Amino acid sequence: MPPHAARLISTLIRARRATSVLEIGTSNGCSAIWFADALRDTGGRLTTVDIDAERVTAALANLERAGAREYADVRHGDGAEILADTPDAPVDLVVLDAERPAYVAYWPHLRRVLKPYGILAVDNAVSHRNQVAAFRELPASAAEFAVDLHEVGDGVLTGVRVR
Amino acid sequence: MPPHAARLISTLIRARRATSVLEIGTSNGCSAIWFADALRDTGGRLTTVDIDAERVTAALANLERAGAREYADVRHGDGAEILADTPDAPVDLVVLDAERPAYVAYWPHLRRVLKPYGILAVDNAVSHRNQVAAFRELPASAAEFAVDLHEVGDGVLTGVRVR
Repeated sequence: MPPHAARLISTLIRARRATSVLEIGTSNGCSAIWFADALRDTGGRLTTVDIDAERVTAALANLERAGAREYADVRHGDGAEILADTPDAPVDLVVLDAERPAYVAYWPHLRRVLKPYGILAVDNAVSHRNQVAAFRELPASAAEFAVDLHEVGDGVLTGVRVR
Repeated sequence: MPPHAARLISTLIRARRATSVLEIGTSNGCSAIWFADALRDTGGRLTTVDIDAERVTAALANLERAGAREYADVRHGDGAEILADTPDAPVDLVVLDAERPAYVAYWPHLRRVLKPYGILAVDNAVSHRNQVAAFRELPASAAEFAVDLHEVGDGVLTGVRVR
């Protein structure tokens, strides 16, 4: 995730005073370092998951070097399973930066795990517009979500669960 | 204010579930229409002030046309005076889009009127970088603010009062 996108999401974490953030798609952990910086302020914690064991190892090393290790649980696994295992409404903010064609299948769980006024943030909403298009329709047509597209980095789609 | 900047701030309003927003520099009221859209969701209200009576008249007409009139108090006056008359800590989010050289003098009031985890948003932080530079140092060097620059529209500087 480009720094501009991670910075926007870290501002949203602070703005909401989010303490429970779930990232699907850890990659090298650079975005997690940004989120951890915000969670240090809010007293919160990140759970971030990646399906690739090598990326998990790299992310742990990067978080350690950044002094951010204590703010993040890095898990090796499938985002869909982590979502399915999450109870209703404990999460302040979910970040999607993973296998985009899988997002549509995440949707029933995403709307279930977010708290009221919880936030969904989806990276690559401009750079991979077509891959995100089918998913985007879901929060956009759900009455409880207010959806906006922010043209920072590769494009960040946000949805706030306003009712 | 360009739509991209107004959209970012409206997302922050929803993310924070802000109900009390103060805008200094109403201009034609287009940004106020974006903010009102978010405040409709949160059950909140905008106070927006401009020193130019013609702009106040135009903004009222634009808000009326947009069906957003009921979410905004449009006031004719000096932002500095409005800030000085505001009690401590009732405001969720302050937007500055006015006479940039005056912002430094606003600062003691800005840090006073914002609630904990309140948000400061300053437009034109890239397009008028030099005019905003002296002000930017104030939240950036205040331990209680986390400051970020978002490169949308003309550049939006945000500061969240994290402690």
